[in-house]
Amino acid sequence: MTSSWLDIEESQFGLEALPYATFHTAADPAPRLGVRIGDHVLDVAAAAAGLAGHCEGGLDGLLAAGPEAWTEVRAEVTRLLSDPACEAEVRPHLVPLEDAVLLLPFTVADYVDFYASEHHATNVGRLFRPDSEPLTPNWKHLPIGYHGRAGTVVVSGTDVVRPTGQRRTPDGIVDGPSIRLDIEAELGFVVGVGSEIADPVPLAEAADHIFGVALVNDWSARDIQAWEYVPLGPFLGKSFATSISPWVLPLAALEAARIRPPERDVPLTGYLDDSDLEPWGLDLALEVRVNGSLVSEPPYATMYWTAPQMLAHMTANGAILRVGDLFASGTISGPEPGQRGSLLELGWSGAEPFKLDDGSVRSFLEDGDEVTITATAPAPGGGRIALGEVSGRILPAKARP
Amino acid sequence: MTSSWLDIEESQFGLEALPYATFHTAADPAPRLGVRIGDHVLDVAAAAAGLAGHCEGGLDGLLAAGPEAWTEVRAEVTRLLSDPACEAEVRPHLVPLEDAVLLLPFTVADYVDFYASEHHATNVGRLFRPDSEPLTPNWKHLPIGYHGRAGTVVVSGTDVVRPTGQRRTPDGIVDGPSIRLDIEAELGFVVGVGSEIADPVPLAEAADHIFGVALVNDWSARDIQAWEYVPLGPFLGKSFATSISPWVLPLAALEAARIRPPERDVPLTGYLDDSDLEPWGLDLALEVRVNGSLVSEPPYATMYWTAPQMLAHMTANGAILRVGDLFASGTISGPEPGQRGSLLELGWSGAEPFKLDDGSVRSFLEDGDEVTITATAPAPGGGRIALGEVSGRILPAKARP
Repeated sequence: MTSSWLDIEESQFGLEALPYATFHTAADPAPRLGVRIGDHVLDVAAAAAGLAGHCEGGLDGLLAAGPEAWTEVRAEVTRLLSDPACEAEVRPHLVPLEDAVLLLPFTVADYVDFYASEHHATNVGRLFRPDSEPLTPNWKHLPIGYHGRAGTVVVSGTDVVRPTGQRRTPDGIVDGPSIRLDIEAELGFVVGVGSEIADPVPLAEAADHIFGVALVNDWSARDIQAWEYVPLGPFLGKSFATSISPWVLPLAALEAARIRPPERDVPLTGYLDDSDLEPWGLDLALEVRVNGSLVSEPPYATMYWTAPQMLAHMTANGAILRVGDLFASGTISGPEPGQRGSLLELGWSGAEPFKLDDGSVRSFLEDGDEVTITATAPAPGGGRIALGEVSGRILPAKARP
Repeated sequence: MTSSWLDIEESQFGLEALPYATFHTAADPAPRLGVRIGDHVLDVAAAAAGLAGHCEGGLDGLLAAGPEAWTEVRAEVTRLLSDPACEAEVRPHLVPLEDAVLLLPFTVADYVDFYASEHHATNVGRLFRPDSEPLTPNWKHLPIGYHGRAGTVVVSGTDVVRPTGQRRTPDGIVDGPSIRLDIEAELGFVVGVGSEIADPVPLAEAADHIFGVALVNDWSARDIQAWEYVPLGPFLGKSFATSISPWVLPLAALEAARIRPPERDVPLTGYLDDSDLEPWGLDLALEVRVNGSLVSEPPYATMYWTAPQMLAHMTANGAILRVGDLFASGTISGPEPGQRGSLLELGWSGAEPFKLDDGSVRSFLEDGDEVTITATAPAPGGGRIALGEVSGRILPAKARP
């Protein structure tokens, strides 16, 4: 296995990972493309002038440059960081992580959120619709999804102001700060190659469109959501903030993570039938921390619907795909209680509050709480690589003007 | 009343209207800002070099230039088209309508679709959920809305390929061309001034953010929608195409259309309480034609929720607003059968097919059908002004690859 001339042996951000960010520094405020290596950010265009045309303005530029450029940039960055002959030239362009300001990694075009975890959908069905079957009749026939608000996708580290809105109480409808503020631990897929309108993307071509993955926390105000969501779906309960990791890991880094998805219980219609496709399950291990306490370890391997299925479904009606489209998996929950990717499920809607390491209990988020989601994937040569974290802290609600 | 030196006496696109478009011509392919006057398009920057900085690239430039520029451009265009001394200078910059290629008028940031017509929501409730109360309990407490797909907003005149997707039949789930393809006649509001995250827009400040209005046809595949929409709302049933008029009429042209909205049956919580606000109902008269046959005359005056209420609600949780955000009213239906803004309602879900002038009947759209929506509003000095039309023709479904 190739190794780097940098001393990063203990890091999960080695040569097998190499996620991208858009960053700037106090010294140079121009947004530009960075690659993470250990605890440094490689300033790609500064280190390799030949790549500058592939990454103008940061990751937006790399996405637009297309798959051949993606391959070229990853290969060249790998060479620069592994060939000892490059060290002298490259080292000046390694920015210590603490000096890099990590920006929203790319301009989000449309944002779609799926609902691809059977365990999550089942849990939510039990909690929100206790008198019905937990899974709606359509659930195993198609990956349910809906459009979110692209404008409120924010980069990890952005504070989240507790939203205010309408909720139903035994005494009537109240407009006030959400008292059931939650997280959703998700994986986001970043589209790097668009498609024309009326030209659906088949399953087998999904990898030609997806650039890579990021971690996503789709903050959710469960009380606002519960009151508003019938019949047109979640709106204000979700649209106040969606946090995304600054690091986008290219698909090329996830080859060793590919596994078969769970068995399908219902035969799938042609455009979703992936039985002949190479496996697109992903063996990612997530960790969710509240104020440093590990509260959940959601296994992405248990997700029912795969990214190609989400993409094929999203475009099955001819919807256009654009560079910068983001589609997320929906909350990742495994079958075990300690694998649930939302507090709604972890605390069973307030019925079973859980403890943090400091002894305090939670059902939902309190002001000042900080939530951090991390994840790792198997590395090609053994060991694991890391995805960059997504974190955010809750600020108190603001009074209405 | 001011009159123009152009002979436009019979036109509803006179000096009181002056809607904007982004256009180009065969001779000059650069997208630029146009103002409609009669059957001509005024090339604004060419006619008034002093305004060029306010409209770079077309309407996007004017939106970004802000409210003072909006006032200045409208005043200057009015002067140029009314002062006989300007005729010689301005006339060369009037492009005959048939020579102008009208483009998507602005870059759509986020697209939200509301559900603001009580009559429409009641009709749809009866048809989609016959065993429940037609209006959901939340309907009169808040303007229900959801995010649509910004990337598939297309300009009037763009053909619409019949979408293919899953629908439920007595024999099981079928993937095939939609057989219940419908329209939704709507009014869209174009945001010209954004807001910061966590900074809701109060009702009284809505006019500081809304630039103007456009006509919208939110094409809908009712069979796809009915199968997919529980629990997270419409997705593929809507996201294949949303057509918008090329013309955006500034709010300044709608002063004479302002009327009181309908009486509210339920007391409104503070951020939605418009009882002290100047009236924001809009007395617009829409006409919906299928292949030239007038099938409906939806009255916008009957809409329950106003644009400021939609905007205040959309941002009540702190969601960011961006220049280019588009929010639409939802289907406009009046109380009478001939005032319904969707075929679903006009044909009562296939139970009561309606006739076109050529004797053919329709419940939903057939391949080749062309739908055109037009609207007029009261003009300040009497008479009426027109909004630009939105039209589209249905092409046959494409086979799955």
